[in-house]
Formats: sequence, C-alpha cells, structure tokens
Amino acid sequence: MRVVLVAGTTETAKIPGISAAGADPSLVGHTPSADAEIIEYGEPVRSPVTPVSPTGCPTPAAVTRAVKQLTGFDVLTVDAGLAKPSAAPTIDVGARPGRDIRESEPVPTAPGAFEAARRMGLALPEDELVIGETVPGGTTTALAVFRALGEEFPVSSSLPDNPTSLKEEVVAEAFEASDVEPGFAAHKPRRAARYLGDPVLPVVAGLTVGALENGIDVTLGGGTQLLAAAALARHAGADGDLTLATTSYLAEDVPELADAADAFDLELTVTDPGFETHPLDRYDAGEAKEGAGMGGALMLADRMGVLDDVEAATLDVLSTLDPEAVETGPAAADAGGADAGGADADIDDGP
Amino acid sequence: MRVVLVAGTTETAKIPGISAAGADPSLVGHTPSADAEIIEYGEPVRSPVTPVSPTGCPTPAAVTRAVKQLTGFDVLTVDAGLAKPSAAPTIDVGARPGRDIRESEPVPTAPGAFEAARRMGLALPEDELVIGETVPGGTTTALAVFRALGEEFPVSSSLPDNPTSLKEEVVAEAFEASDVEPGFAAHKPRRAARYLGDPVLPVVAGLTVGALENGIDVTLGGGTQLLAAAALARHAGADGDLTLATTSYLAEDVPELADAADAFDLELTVTDPGFETHPLDRYDAGEAKEGAGMGGALMLADRMGVLDDVEAATLDVLSTLDPEAVETGPAAADAGGADAGGADADIDDGP
Repeated sequence: MRVVLVAGTTETAKIPGISAAGADPSLVGHTPSADAEIIEYGEPVRSPVTPVSPTGCPTPAAVTRAVKQLTGFDVLTVDAGLAKPSAAPTIDVGARPGRDIRESEPVPTAPGAFEAARRMGLALPEDELVIGETVPGGTTTALAVFRALGEEFPVSSSLPDNPTSLKEEVVAEAFEASDVEPGFAAHKPRRAARYLGDPVLPVVAGLTVGALENGIDVTLGGGTQLLAAAALARHAGADGDLTLATTSYLAEDVPELADAADAFDLELTVTDPGFETHPLDRYDAGEAKEGAGMGGALMLADRMGVLDDVEAATLDVLSTLDPEAVETGPAAADAGGADAGGADADIDDGP
Repeated sequence: MRVVLVAGTTETAKIPGISAAGADPSLVGHTPSADAEIIEYGEPVRSPVTPVSPTGCPTPAAVTRAVKQLTGFDVLTVDAGLAKPSAAPTIDVGARPGRDIRESEPVPTAPGAFEAARRMGLALPEDELVIGETVPGGTTTALAVFRALGEEFPVSSSLPDNPTSLKEEVVAEAFEASDVEPGFAAHKPRRAARYLGDPVLPVVAGLTVGALENGIDVTLGGGTQLLAAAALARHAGADGDLTLATTSYLAEDVPELADAADAFDLELTVTDPGFETHPLDRYDAGEAKEGAGMGGALMLADRMGVLDDVEAATLDVLSTLDPEAVETGPAAADAGGADAGGADADIDDGP
C-alpha cells in the first residue's frame, strides 16, 4: 500500500483571488514542494515556507503526514511540474510547470507525462495505490478540463467563498486562447490537459489508467480535482473499480458530488476527521477542505482504526511547524543545482 | 533514522575488468538505478535489469531491502549522477554522470553537488543518518581520490580477485590526464573529486559534512569507497563523531581497515551476516562484499536484534527478483521523459 502525491504547479494560481494555498500569492509556487517535504519529513526542509492559507488554515499535508505516522504507509512523490526545489525525493515523468491556462498551450508536457505516468502505474509492484495531488490553482484548471471533456460538474475551492464567477471567466478566456469549444476533447484526455489543464491532472490520470491495467486497487484521495482526473481516466477508456475518497468538508461544499461519482462510476467514500481544535477548526469553517491526499489518508486512518487519533497527531505535526516562518535555515531556497558551490578556494581554480 | 543511498555512475566502470556490478559491462549503467528500486520497492521497476555479478552473486541492495523490511527504516535516495531512469524517488543535488577518470575533468559537477549535499545535511530533520553508495567502478575512483588527497590506503573490489594493478594503471593515467601529482588536493576535497573522482564521493562527503555540522549522528555504511568519502569529509575540516559500518567480507579483504579508520578518526563497526545459503554463499566466497548501504543496514539489524533474520529475509527478497531476466515488462528502459508519449491520435494533432 502506497500513497502517491502528485505535486506540481500552474501559473493559473497567480491570478489574484484564485487560490488559498499560500499565505500570499508570491508564495504559492512553493506550496507543492513544501507539502511533499511535510509528508516525507514532517516539516519543510528546502522550502522556505510552511503553507498556510491567508487566514492561517494549515496545509492538509499536515493531516496526511499525521496519518503516515499513525499507519506507516509508504509514500511516492511524483514531480508533476514543481517550480521550486523540494527536499522530498521525487520521480520524474517529464512534466514541467504549467503556464496560465489563458495561454494557448499551457501544458505541452501533458501527453508525454500522461504516458510516462501510465507506464509507472503499469510497473509499480503494489496491491493498492491512494493518489492525491497538490497544485495551487488546481480547481480552476479542473473546471476547464471538465468543460473540455464536455462534462458539466462544478468544482470546489480552498477558499471559504468559492470565487465561481472568477473561475468561469478564466475558463472562458482559456477556451478563447486555445481557440476551442467546450467538449472539443471528449475521449481525448491528453488533449484536454494539454490545452486547458495543469500538469498534475494528466499525471494522476495516467497513473490511474496504468495502475488499473496492472490490476492495482486505486483510490483517488481528494476533491473535485481528483474527480476531474477520474473523468480524464474514464475518457481514456479505463474501466475497473475506482474509488474517490474525500473529506466531509469537501462533500458538504459540493452537493453534486454523489451524482458526479455515479457519472464516472466511482465508489465514493467520505470521511469526517471531526476537527475541533484551533487551528484545525478552520477546516470546519470551510477552509482548505482537501488536498495533499488528505481524504485518502483519512480513509486509510478509518480503515486501520486510528481515525480518532488523527486530530491529536496532526496537532503534533503542526507543533513542529512554524506557520509564521517565511524563511527557514541555511538550506532555504535553491539548495540544488550544480552552481550551488560556495566561494571556497578549492572550487574555482584549475587543478 | 534514515538510510541515505547515494546513487550514481562513472564511465570508469566501463573499463574491462574494473567492476563486477552487473552481469556484463553493458549493463553496469543500470545497476545504481536498479539498486535504488530494489531498496524502495523490493524489485526493479523501470530498470531492465536485476543486478548480479557475472557469476550470479546478487546485489547487496537485496540485503539492504531485507533489513528495511525487518526494521522499517526510512530511505532517501540521492541522484548523484544516475545515467538511467529510476522509478525510485530521488533528490537532485545537481550531480551528473561522471566521465572516465582518464579524462581531464571527469566530474565538473563535484563542487556544486558537494555544496548542495552539505546544505541537505544541514537541513534534514533527522537524529541519525546511515549513508551508503551504489556506483559501479567506485573503488577505482576511490583509489584515485585517496592518492589525490595524499593518502596511501588501499581499496577493495567487488571481484573476488581485486584487479589491483589494473586499478593502479588507470589511476596513473588519470593523474596524467589531469596533469596533477598525488597529494595535489590535500585539504581540497572538492578538487580531488572533480579531477580524479566519481560523482558519488563528493555527495557522500558533502552530506556528511553538513549532517555533522547539524548535530546528526552519521554512520557511513560501506567499504573503502565510504572510507574515501570519510577522507574527503575530514579533509574538508569536518570534525565530530563518525562511524564506518561495514561487512565482515569487506573487513577480511582489507587488513589495513582498522588503521585507516584510526587515521580518519572513525569508529569501526564490522557485522557478519553469516550467509550460508546459495546464492548468498557467494558473499562468503569473497564476491560483492559491500555496497548499497549493506554494512550500515547490517549494523542496524544487529542493533535492533534482527541480525539472525537477515539471511531468510534476503532470500525472500531474492525470490521475487529474477536474476535471469535482463528485460522486464512494459515499463522497462526509459519510461520517463516528455517525449515518452505513444502514437495515440490525441497527442500529436493541434487542438
């Protein structure tokens, strides 16, 4: 059993008002890298931020980490277009950061990454995968992908008040920029992702298609973005049992969820972590709702009989994070890269 | 507690007679990628080979995997110049595959990778690290690095008969190609690695230096290559307690080991896994000896009281491997990369 975190970015997140996945818009590019680090290590390592919403709601990655500590599941992080270095180990499927969907071809890497992810799904020696995502701005690209496929389902938001009309406006501009009509990509999932999506959706869909072909039990752990990934997988012709595991917060926000799950032949599992303590009470106030595999992790916690321990374990994770800190220690920023050498005398001279 | 596998390649391994880390020389480039997959998943995933020596001795990665299953340690694989795609998640420190040391500057990425690895060591939130390596040809580059630092210690070999005079010949050519003399890089570890080493050694050394600065307990799990990395770390000025944990097979092969450990102020731990059953009896016949963190893993197994279970657990890992298979399923070869897309109609057309 392994939880896969598909982590990437889209410039769409920088449109003001679109995403709550960062204390301010300049930091959302770091959120997926930091989320992956929190799940792997329990805290940010290379990333200079601890992701919180503008009002201080902690990232759902802390919940996923807490469940990892409680249950011991294995993790696999897929680089689906990370924009910033992460200290979390990742696999490469050829994805690159996505551009704003109001450009004509925001995700040129979508077809290749879909295929590479499908092959990973075909090759992984696992009985069961739970696949989650972290990509700020991802509900807007999910909405565009639904429309590209000719599907009418709505999407949720990490903000308490879903900026629905702003999203519709962005999506309309996206269709205009790519000079296509809603439904143009029905049964053409890679085209939908390439012209209207983000780099995470085709990777989730490709992994799902490959894993199902491979006989692996697949649960998509998340909200309407994972629903869009399921739609892509079904439009790619994947059959086989598929579960969508989400949080009660997300399910309350999207009354159409059960119908949508039916439409894509998904078993729906909704788990309520019962958060009451500050700052987790912000979830109960409708913030964040999902992300970083939280719904899938909660399903596993429930199955393994530790759901009641998740709140305390999450508070424990949060106690080692510092949501106020925007800068961390000497490893902050881009510790990777061949040019990272210091000024020591033994570097720059010849032999 | 985390085991770090520093995995990379050097073209030096392609010199006939240098390395036993692959059934034949054309496959050694896959060995580090496959070793990382075996530790992470229990079997090769993207890699088309299961690493065995030409005589069928299985890779020490199977032993490290067995101990992971017995003890549950966390793993971090560092890409220190992998030449082939791996399905094991990795972190990037800017390393690239090393060229043959008989070229003038085989590892231009050494200084930057050393520094990036040092920053990782400074940032990792761990109490203890056990660092191992997988790099075919690595004892030859280790020998060259010893000489570059002005140190006289000998190196071991994955072959039962150490091709010592071939290695000395290659090292002499390497010094000639870089136009330097033994000892030229004393106290200049990055220069030693850049002009005479492989990409793995500076990453192990950088991680060690950073982790020691960070107050992390560091054990180098391996043989004379890890001894060379310790020499680099000491020549970089690192003090602090440092342990070298190796196998009884390696220690028997290198009588000078205790003196060398003394010289670099290393505590030496030697663990005998007591292998008797085929094909693990090949270790007792002097093959492989070390690698992929085996000595460090055995130390952990001993500490946690499961050393007696390692042989059976390793045979269990080997039972799911197929040492005869040179090709695996549809995920073989380069599943990664943006051009991996198939010929489906929805890929290549415009929108």
